[in-house]
Amino acid sequence: GFAHLDQHRAIRCGFPEVVFGQGKTPEQVVQIVRRLAERNDRVLVTRVAAEMAQVVLEQIPEMAYHAVPRLLILNRSPDTPKRPGIVVATGGTADIPVAEEAAMTAELMDQQVVRLYDVGVAGLHRLLGHLEVLQRARVIVVVAGMEGALASVVGGLVSAPVIAVPTSVGYGANFQGLSALLTMLNSCATGVSVVNIDNGFGAGYLAGLINRLGDPA
Amino acid sequence: GFAHLDQHRAIRCGFPEVVFGQGKTPEQVVQIVRRLAERNDRVLVTRVAAEMAQVVLEQIPEMAYHAVPRLLILNRSPDTPKRPGIVVATGGTADIPVAEEAAMTAELMDQQVVRLYDVGVAGLHRLLGHLEVLQRARVIVVVAGMEGALASVVGGLVSAPVIAVPTSVGYGANFQGLSALLTMLNSCATGVSVVNIDNGFGAGYLAGLINRLGDPA
Amino acid sequence: GFAHLDQHRAIRCGFPEVVFGQGKTPEQVVQIVRRLAERNDRVLVTRVAAEMAQVVLEQIPEMAYHAVPRLLILNRSPDTPKRPGIVVATGGTADIPVAEEAAMTAELMDQQVVRLYDVGVAGLHRLLGHLEVLQRARVIVVVAGMEGALASVVGGLVSAPVIAVPTSVGYGANFQGLSALLTMLNSCATGVSVVNIDNGFGAGYLAGLINRLGDPA
Amino acid sequence: GFAHLDQHRAIRCGFPEVVFGQGKTPEQVVQIVRRLAERNDRVLVTRVAAEMAQVVLEQIPEMAYHAVPRLLILNRSPDTPKRPGIVVATGGTADIPVAEEAAMTAELMDQQVVRLYDVGVAGLHRLLGHLEVLQRARVIVVVAGMEGALASVVGGLVSAPVIAVPTSVGYGANFQGLSALLTMLNSCATGVSVVNIDNGFGAGYLAGLINRLGDPA
Amino acid sequence: GFAHLDQHRAIRCGFPEVVFGQGKTPEQVVQIVRRLAERNDRVLVTRVAAEMAQVVLEQIPEMAYHAVPRLLILNRSPDTPKRPGIVVATGGTADIPVAEEAAMTAELMDQQVVRLYDVGVAGLHRLLGHLEVLQRARVIVVVAGMEGALASVVGGLVSAPVIAVPTSVGYGANFQGLSALLTMLNSCATGVSVVNIDNGFGAGYLAGLINRLGDPA
Amino acid sequence: GFAHLDQHRAIRCGFPEVVFGQGKTPEQVVQIVRRLAERNDRVLVTRVAAEMAQVVLEQIPEMAYHAVPRLLILNRSPDTPKRPGIVVATGGTADIPVAEEAAMTAELMDQQVVRLYDVGVAGLHRLLGHLEVLQRARVIVVVAGMEGALASVVGGLVSAPVIAVPTSVGYGANFQGLSALLTMLNSCATGVSVVNIDNGFGAGYLAGLINRLGDPA
Amino acid sequence: GFAHLDQHRAIRCGFPEVVFGQGKTPEQVVQIVRRLAERNDRVLVTRVAAEMAQVVLEQIPEMAYHAVPRLLILNRSPDTPKRPGIVVATGGTADIPVAEEAAMTAELMDQQVVRLYDVGVAGLHRLLGHLEVLQRARVIVVVAGMEGALASVVGGLVSAPVIAVPTSVGYGANFQGLSALLTMLNSCATGVSVVNIDNGFGAGYLAGLINRLGDPA
Amino acid sequence: GFAHLDQHRAIRCGFPEVVFGQGKTPEQVVQIVRRLAERNDRVLVTRVAAEMAQVVLEQIPEMAYHAVPRLLILNRSPDTPKRPGIVVATGGTADIPVAEEAAMTAELMDQQVVRLYDVGVAGLHRLLGHLEVLQRARVIVVVAGMEGALASVVGGLVSAPVIAVPTSVGYGANFQGLSALLTMLNSCATGVSVVNIDNGFGAGYLAGLINRLGDPA
Ligand SMILES: Nc1ncnc2c1ncn2[C@@H]1O[C@H](COP(=O)(O)O)[C@@H](O)[C@H]1O
Ligand SMILES: Nc1ncnc2c1ncn2[C@@H]1O[C@H](COP(=O)(O)O)[C@@H](O)[C@H]1O
Ligand SMILES: Nc1ncnc2c1ncn2[C@@H]1O[C@H](COP(=O)(O)O)[C@@H](O)[C@H]1O
Ligand SMILES: Nc1ncnc2c1ncn2[C@@H]1O[C@H](COP(=O)(O)O)[C@@H](O)[C@H]1O
Ligand SMILES: [Mg+2]
Ligand SMILES: [Mg+2]
Ligand SMILES: [Mg+2]
Ligand SMILES: [Mg+2]
Ligand SMILES: [Mg+2]
Ligand SMILES: [Mg+2]
Ligand SMILES: [Mg+2]
Ligand SMILES: [Mg+2]
Repeated sequence: GFAHLDQHRAIRCGFPEVVFGQGKTPEQVVQIVRRLAERNDRVLVTRVAAEMAQVVLEQIPEMAYHAVPRLLILNRSPDTPKRPGIVVATGGTADIPVAEEAAMTAELMDQQVVRLYDVGVAGLHRLLGHLEVLQRARVIVVVAGMEGALASVVGGLVSAPVIAVPTSVGYGANFQGLSALLTMLNSCATGVSVVNIDNGFGAGYLAGLINRLGDPA
Repeated sequence: GFAHLDQHRAIRCGFPEVVFGQGKTPEQVVQIVRRLAERNDRVLVTRVAAEMAQVVLEQIPEMAYHAVPRLLILNRSPDTPKRPGIVVATGGTADIPVAEEAAMTAELMDQQVVRLYDVGVAGLHRLLGHLEVLQRARVIVVVAGMEGALASVVGGLVSAPVIAVPTSVGYGANFQGLSALLTMLNSCATGVSVVNIDNGFGAGYLAGLINRLGDPA
Repeated sequence: GFAHLDQHRAIRCGFPEVVFGQGKTPEQVVQIVRRLAERNDRVLVTRVAAEMAQVVLEQIPEMAYHAVPRLLILNRSPDTPKRPGIVVATGGTADIPVAEEAAMTAELMDQQVVRLYDVGVAGLHRLLGHLEVLQRARVIVVVAGMEGALASVVGGLVSAPVIAVPTSVGYGANFQGLSALLTMLNSCATGVSVVNIDNGFGAGYLAGLINRLGDPA
Repeated sequence: GFAHLDQHRAIRCGFPEVVFGQGKTPEQVVQIVRRLAERNDRVLVTRVAAEMAQVVLEQIPEMAYHAVPRLLILNRSPDTPKRPGIVVATGGTADIPVAEEAAMTAELMDQQVVRLYDVGVAGLHRLLGHLEVLQRARVIVVVAGMEGALASVVGGLVSAPVIAVPTSVGYGANFQGLSALLTMLNSCATGVSVVNIDNGFGAGYLAGLINRLGDPA
Repeated sequence: GFAHLDQHRAIRCGFPEVVFGQGKTPEQVVQIVRRLAERNDRVLVTRVAAEMAQVVLEQIPEMAYHAVPRLLILNRSPDTPKRPGIVVATGGTADIPVAEEAAMTAELMDQQVVRLYDVGVAGLHRLLGHLEVLQRARVIVVVAGMEGALASVVGGLVSAPVIAVPTSVGYGANFQGLSALLTMLNSCATGVSVVNIDNGFGAGYLAGLINRLGDPA
Repeated sequence: GFAHLDQHRAIRCGFPEVVFGQGKTPEQVVQIVRRLAERNDRVLVTRVAAEMAQVVLEQIPEMAYHAVPRLLILNRSPDTPKRPGIVVATGGTADIPVAEEAAMTAELMDQQVVRLYDVGVAGLHRLLGHLEVLQRARVIVVVAGMEGALASVVGGLVSAPVIAVPTSVGYGANFQGLSALLTMLNSCATGVSVVNIDNGFGAGYLAGLINRLGDPA
Repeated sequence: GFAHLDQHRAIRCGFPEVVFGQGKTPEQVVQIVRRLAERNDRVLVTRVAAEMAQVVLEQIPEMAYHAVPRLLILNRSPDTPKRPGIVVATGGTADIPVAEEAAMTAELMDQQVVRLYDVGVAGLHRLLGHLEVLQRARVIVVVAGMEGALASVVGGLVSAPVIAVPTSVGYGANFQGLSALLTMLNSCATGVSVVNIDNGFGAGYLAGLINRLGDPA
Repeated sequence: GFAHLDQHRAIRCGFPEVVFGQGKTPEQVVQIVRRLAERNDRVLVTRVAAEMAQVVLEQIPEMAYHAVPRLLILNRSPDTPKRPGIVVATGGTADIPVAEEAAMTAELMDQQVVRLYDVGVAGLHRLLGHLEVLQRARVIVVVAGMEGALASVVGGLVSAPVIAVPTSVGYGANFQGLSALLTMLNSCATGVSVVNIDNGFGAGYLAGLINRLGDPA
């Protein structure tokens, strides 16, 4: 049967359960986290507004809230060595919340993350100043809004896989991130794939999966 | 009254009449060109298919047909000195027809055009190898399909006005040029404006207008 | 290397740094302005809500806030002579905030701006009453919402470059400015290019770049 | 019951039955026309390709085919006096097929139609040269593609009802007529309503209905 | 010249100036109404929120505010005889605000309006119970949201012109009125034309224009 | 395991495998039909162009091709009694191919189908003349293009489930069936659900499933 | 005439009147419910916000408010036996409000509903653990947001009709439910039809209609 | 400088140059392949129509053409050992051309590919029969059209990275692949990223990059 799939999930994935906080009540989140915490050392809740965080933290004080990426994290085994290889880059400062969601997700998977923020293509020298860091990476997450051109430029500079995250940063013909999304899907650089608009969690998780692939076992 | 506007057009604009060839019959084009040729030294017909060109050339042998940009040109005063200042760049080779439409339109306005073709962002060194040419330009036309990121990158490297032309080159989520169009409209580089998808003529014409602005008179 | 690009920016562009205020905290804006002010006589912050402006002004009292275009401006060298040549026109009164963003951006670049507001095509005589002003302009910014037809009409009356700014003014099938955007991109008048919906800053900046092109040096 | 509605249609409407030719076989059209001709003096078939027309004309030689608007017409009572009041205007020459569909539909309803073709807004003097004709009209059909701005300009010049017909003439961000459609729906001129893209028949029919309203009885 | 167009507007149109209230400040509205009231007996302000109305009424107490259609009306000559001929019908009760905007606009033009509200097609008998009223009308305004099918059904029952007004009533795949808009544009009934989503004013105004056409002079 | 699902499919569903012909080569279709025919008395291939049918029929002469709905059918047990209860209605004649696809699919499931073609809402009496047939039905398939209003009108007249099939019949703002699709999804009549544009097969199959529900066992 | 249709509605449909609460004032709802309650034992009001519910309950205390599905229900004959056969399944917990709207609507029609919540495809074993329940159902409502894949998977596992309800749960390229809607419309599983985004009421009502079809009488 | 980037590309990437065949003339392709072949053992040309292939093969007989994925391949070092780890799965048979483009691209990068074709979710047992193969994979390419649900189901069954390729297979509300694209972007399974519609090349290339990450050197 298939009933055994779920209970082995943490074993297979090496990752705690993740909760999508948006659209849940604080009470629901508390209840779900408590249940997951019975079997997991780590629990991650994404898209948590500050007000929800406050309620949850009163109930489960061992969690930590990170306001910028709006993450609630339970981590009972934080002092593990991190595996290097991941770079998270952003086009602008307004993309940082999504980038931090990606970076902290990967870090919770015991990955080491180098952050290159505000290196968008309108000032190319900022990006090119970090060329070596980019070319040493094993997997790169590119987070960009507005026209999202950063993914193509980075993809053309490196041969590592690039995970592109369009953000909803912008206005007008940006159409809440559609512009950056289409840009990234049409990238003429090779090695680029795309996740949903503002989906930092998905990109960080995938980066973690990929970076672990080289593990001896 | 307003009736004088039209007859003075060539005087005001320094440019011959332009005919939009698409959707007209060869006979209509012949007739319109003949009428315009009575008062103009130069007539430009855009979006002319090869079959139409053949019919028109039989009737008006002094015209020349340019197959790549699909332009029919009558030019009785071709040996004028050209004013330098315009660069036309493309992301790929498939963008060349649109770029040539822009370049030859500007040349017919007595502008000198430097062509930088196939310098798309997925191979940044190709573009950066021409940095000086770009930074010396007075106005730059950037023609790109797929994700259209070239306009942002060029816009960030120069302080000249950049006229961005999205092309319909691509497939899938390109949506016949929508992707490049949105990219260019959302450019975070300053000094970039956009014309319609595949509108090389409009970009070349505008580049000509802008480059002439510095004329002593 | 490319590291020298940035420090020479003000020299190349003749323009101060610009900060995109939307999506930043007041603290971030204060910090960025202070840093930019160390090397620039002028700093422009766009898309600044009144509440943010209040906080910033308490910290940096030498700035001025313009509520209609939502601009924060630091200008330590205001008494420079302005170069004539730019007209900014709007279809309606609701387009004025975007138009003012354009006009004040250009003025900060030492350009002189003639304002023609509320001259939309539904009352053509209002526009035609200013025909001479329009035809004398070296570059025209047309700001219009709803159907955005003003750009085509102006483009047909003049031979100067027209920078069209669609606005999100309207309702229903306007789709937050999409209607005016498409109208302007499809303009059958020559010499018209388009910037993003509500992007007065971009249009004003580009108008400044173009108008300066005729400079003796 | 409702069964009487249909047989009185010609009486109520003073108009022949109309057949939508597109997507039918020539045989189906022949059969439908024959049935309708038993009770009606006039039958109109719209959207008829040349090949279909040839087949139908061989079977029903008393019909006439009009290639430009692709109309097949049976008219056994052609010499009726026409009621003046309708103007049909187009932005360009490529809009003429749709305009002729409108004009000939109205004429078949015994309306007199004044044609003003190729008076688009990019050359405003062409339109303004016909101001008197426009202002004397009782109802105006405006047919325009690309950006479709003509409807707003005409609507602002007259107080008669304006029926706007967007056409699919254009390319790129025209999106097969969407651009002109949105423009016309968002018209800031009063008295403007819109029919489907390329629906010349619908506009001509409606113009006929409206112009007849003033009939003594 | 064209300057005389505007001053004769009330004469040509037989209608007072109309102000688009949305996006204006109460102060702007007061000022505009005062200026218009100098030469017009009637002034109409559309899309007026209750808070704005309160401010304006304090300044101009002779105006009246109608909360459902959100109209502010100045009418110094209210006791004119009304011309019969207009029917305004709605699909549901949620469409009534838009319908009232249409009806009161037409009434201000001295038209008499019969209201048929909540006669949507999901309960066809409600509509058919009013068949005679519909068939006697000279012009019909159909206001409907959700799928907007009422316009087609009414258009098929009558030979009078039908002005269809899609509303934004609905949810989900309604896309803020897009669904009803497309339905109405694609109506297979003849004699139907369409105005913008929620544009009751435009429909009422046009209905007034059309109904007046039969006037002896 | 799940491997038994497929071989029991005909038993569970009372229906043979269905082959989606579009995008396959005739050879692939022949091969798949042969394999299915080993275990099934009936095989249905949908979306079969005439050229493909010819090739397949040469190889498998016991199949029958139906050109209007483009169906290829193998039926070795055709003389089964049919269960009454299904009505298939269309708005126009151009919708008949899709309607026949639905009807013949249901018939192959041993359902009896009453066809009501060309009863669109623009001539309501045609529909209402069949009211009794509609109200006796156990399940109704409504096939309509253009504005697709027929589904709502039928849905309001009956209490049986209505399966709405939008078709791509139309032009302009129909957008290849999007208009009818949105209309049907937003139907304010209860009991209406929708399948994909032009998906006659899906509707007929579902109608068969529903009509069989009342079976004694 | 048709006037008899309405008064027999409860008889034909076996279901009380339903009121669409959204966009009505509490007063309007009270008034409509009171009128309906004169002739019906059951009245259902959908899309009722908590504030509206409070007002209505003060006026009509015999109603009950269900906060999760936002339903107001008047039920004077609650103790009827329920007919088994309906399953309502959701992909996630955020889809529960829509699912409850469906389930409670069906229950009010005297149907028995089995709920399978949070069985989305990303954890397939959760779904497969309920295979028997699914395969015994006579009609299944599948409620899912984000990518909405659950409808296809369920549709492939069962031969009962599946009514798919896309929800607006998600973010980014979900576009308020468009993603799930398109997924469900394109389902390659047979027997699946779709209702509007978030339209739990419509799905539950249709499920009730279908499940009743097998009734002896 | 940056000029050295290009010449080292094959070294960095371990992959030959790739040519985008679409929109090029056969002559251009011949010329480009010849130039690339001077320095590369392998050259890949994508999106090559049969007619183009014929011309190129006459000029460069050592190339091989693969008609299904439309690939032209030059491979002078074919007998290299392949690295296991990649699975390419499709929903249907019509997705095979895109899947083969992915598989053969990866194979040209010395990767070993297991093909699981026609395992779409409408017949889940087909997929689950290969569960072990899926769970042993290091990276999985999922190619699916219509509703594209396969990516989510696979993503939920494995912890390897999943590269999702939407295809344009389908009709109606599929909108040339948009439906599958949105489904995949909104996948609620973790570890899924997306490339452009029909971009088999991009997915295969990225799979190769990822699978190589575990290399000892
Ligand atoms: N209103 C605006 N619209 C578009 N671009 C802007 C706007 N304001 C500033 N920018 C651009 O954004 C850049 C600064 O972005 P940031 O570093 O995020 O403050 C400037 O150099 C401008 O090019
Ligand atoms: N609700 C409305 N919808 C569309 N157009 C309107 C509306 N109200 C007024 N208008 C038009 O807008 C014009 C006035 O615009 P404004 O000068 O901005 O007040 C009037 O002449 C009307 O043609
Ligand atoms: N949540 C809902 N979604 C779609 N249709 C509904 C909903 N609730 C009620 N309806 C329909 O709307 C009709 C009542 O609309 P109304 O007369 O505006 O209250 C009912 O007969 C139902 O068919
Ligand atoms: N089918 C394809 N889809 C997307 N990108 C491709 C495809 N084939 C080639 N490419 C990319 O396009 C580049 C070559 O483009 P070009 O110079 O126009 O031949 C290659 O380096 C690839 O990155
Ligand atoms: Mg790369
Ligand atoms: Mg620049
Ligand atoms: Mg011009
Ligand atoms: Mg007017
Ligand atoms: Mg009618
Ligand atoms: Mg019903
Ligand atoms: Mg099924
Ligand atoms: Mg997974």
